[in-house]
Amino acid sequence: MTFRIRQLSTADYSSVISVIDQWWGGRQMADLLPRLFFEHFTDTSFAAERDGQLAGFLAGFISQSRPGEAYIHFVGVDPAQRGSGVGRLLYEAFFEAAEARGCVLVRAVTSPVNRGSVAFHQRMGFQLEPGDAQVDGIPVFSGYGGPGGDRVRFIRSLRASERP
Amino acid sequence: MTFRIRQLSTADYSSVISVIDQWWGGRQMADLLPRLFFEHFTDTSFAAERDGQLAGFLAGFISQSRPGEAYIHFVGVDPAQRGSGVGRLLYEAFFEAAEARGCVLVRAVTSPVNRGSVAFHQRMGFQLEPGDAQVDGIPVFSGYGGPGGDRVRFIRSLRASERP
Repeated sequence: MTFRIRQLSTADYSSVISVIDQWWGGRQMADLLPRLFFEHFTDTSFAAERDGQLAGFLAGFISQSRPGEAYIHFVGVDPAQRGSGVGRLLYEAFFEAAEARGCVLVRAVTSPVNRGSVAFHQRMGFQLEPGDAQVDGIPVFSGYGGPGGDRVRFIRSLRASERP
Repeated sequence: MTFRIRQLSTADYSSVISVIDQWWGGRQMADLLPRLFFEHFTDTSFAAERDGQLAGFLAGFISQSRPGEAYIHFVGVDPAQRGSGVGRLLYEAFFEAAEARGCVLVRAVTSPVNRGSVAFHQRMGFQLEPGDAQVDGIPVFSGYGGPGGDRVRFIRSLRASERP
């Protein structure tokens, strides 16, 4: 299986928006991914293609107000492509872009119910930050994503010597 | 009326999220304003306070991939404070921050139904970009905010000599 990883472009917005609700099993996700990511953060956001078809994407950025930090906001993979390693390729492209821009750490956030995401981030070298509560044994930050929005916060050093 | 304008901080997230749906007349707005703006773009995002109470806020950033551009993502004003000039103060704080960081233009987007927002941006020196369609005489970009999401796009030069 060969994927082509390239920078996201403004032209990708409509194709991503047309598939994400379906990739998430019908959840309304489009509000969480405004067009601004396809216009103003394209140099740290990536698309993965296979046979010319969109297989996945990652929207991330360099923190503007926290020097040395980068943040992965949104990642989507076509359900038909899960298990193919495309998520890893997208994350690795982001790590490389963040490091090239002087970052030393990458942050990401997920919901505690998303066990697949928690396990994926751990495989990718992220650590779970200690939260203020636990959900099924997973440390969470209560209300991090708004009322009732408990979230798992991940952090990954870009220095190999500082990773578990 | 005296407003205090200051940079937005992470601590503002919960107070903003607790009022925005109400400020927008019950619309669900919280998904459009993720916590990342209160963590990673605080140096170009602002709160307005009056008598220690939140009267308004602006979340904006410097474009990462488009040199010289800044973008205003989300602005909210307490309905009780409308007409007080607080919106203008927030925009002026953003213009100053963007100019100090080397930007030459500011972009913003709104919905064509939001006539108050269109008029406000025109008063603030923004021009409407020519779109591909018109809604009630206003130029719009069809599907800019996703399927059915026609949007008005504004642009404002930070150079006084280039403004109308």
